[in-house]
Amino acid sequence: MSLSPTLRSTVTRLRERARTSRDDLHAVLDAGLVCHLGLVRDGAPVVLPTGYGRIGDTVYVHGSTGAGYLRIVDGAPVCLTVTHLDGIVYARSVFHHSMNYRSAVVHGTARAVTDPTERLDALRAIVEQLSPGSWEHARQPSSRELAATAVFGIDLTEASVKVRTGPPGDDETDIETGGRWAGVLPVRTVFGAPEPCPTLPPTATAPAHVSERTLVVEP
Amino acid sequence: MSLSPTLRSTVTRLRERARTSRDDLHAVLDAGLVCHLGLVRDGAPVVLPTGYGRIGDTVYVHGSTGAGYLRIVDGAPVCLTVTHLDGIVYARSVFHHSMNYRSAVVHGTARAVTDPTERLDALRAIVEQLSPGSWEHARQPSSRELAATAVFGIDLTEASVKVRTGPPGDDETDIETGGRWAGVLPVRTVFGAPEPCPTLPPTATAPAHVSERTLVVEP
Repeated sequence: MSLSPTLRSTVTRLRERARTSRDDLHAVLDAGLVCHLGLVRDGAPVVLPTGYGRIGDTVYVHGSTGAGYLRIVDGAPVCLTVTHLDGIVYARSVFHHSMNYRSAVVHGTARAVTDPTERLDALRAIVEQLSPGSWEHARQPSSRELAATAVFGIDLTEASVKVRTGPPGDDETDIETGGRWAGVLPVRTVFGAPEPCPTLPPTATAPAHVSERTLVVEP
Repeated sequence: MSLSPTLRSTVTRLRERARTSRDDLHAVLDAGLVCHLGLVRDGAPVVLPTGYGRIGDTVYVHGSTGAGYLRIVDGAPVCLTVTHLDGIVYARSVFHHSMNYRSAVVHGTARAVTDPTERLDALRAIVEQLSPGSWEHARQPSSRELAATAVFGIDLTEASVKVRTGPPGDDETDIETGGRWAGVLPVRTVFGAPEPCPTLPPTATAPAHVSERTLVVEP
């Protein structure tokens, strides 16, 4: 199934960067750790970084029931954007400098998730997106913790995906002139060595889901 | 000078993570490569990734004059957010899983920059933020290229900065129970080896501003 070709989800600039399959959308979302969630508050936009998770064609976010912004989210239009920066594109001209990236922009309406099963599934998806393996390893939520957590679902019905890869697109005259370097400096997100909590016993070692974790970063 | 304590720029949740000095704001912005710019279009939020640059207490963004979204930006309320993910925080409970991060959320009004000197300074700041050294190394913009580029300034008068560092904040009972790992998996953004443009002569080597580039990633 392709992504919906609505006006706002149709890429109008640099169309060659657009991806239109649902698999592309899922791939960009699944490779991320943080999304940027946009809301409208008093007529002005608010953009907040937060974790997220995906199940099928729904993406979920959560937050404390005490967070002010969450009170205005239910039923409201939102925009959820995930961006992977893959490289700095150095061109012969500053004009053609660019980035290699993969981005997904999801337009939708936030729906408060109240069904207990869907809530737990959503929280598991959010935790597993941030830290795969943690849902089974860690203590799962108590009823008090669940009551303190708001969960919202956004259906993936309207979204755009853009991907830029490859070398700079310099003007022919700049290439012929020569004398200037051009190319791509790859950008990678990597993990360092796990830093144990100071309250752990000194003999505790990080489990495989932490110590052997690697990120899928390739476009 | 401290950041303005307006209602929407005052951190209400997890206040201990708030930073209130302008130096903190500048540091988060200066360490970034991509911002997420929020706009309101037909009453709905739109969040787009884009480059940016800072001069003093103004942050600049740019785009093609052909980009649809830029036509609605001038004079409109915007939100510009920069986020650095520094670590995945693994806790004994899924509830206390978290992220270490630095984020800046700037609320403001986009102003179309029309003064030629300010436009050129802004473009230099945007290019140097993405690729330090490129403004001098690469060919600077022609009048045609300048005419095709829209530049917007957003004053840093209203912003919030949040920083989380350190180990998880587990419940005492979970610490006493034991048997589960907790700690931080550091997340780093790094550069790979430069990939020369295929149209370069084989003898071309990357200049120092590319080959020796490193990122400031520490919180």
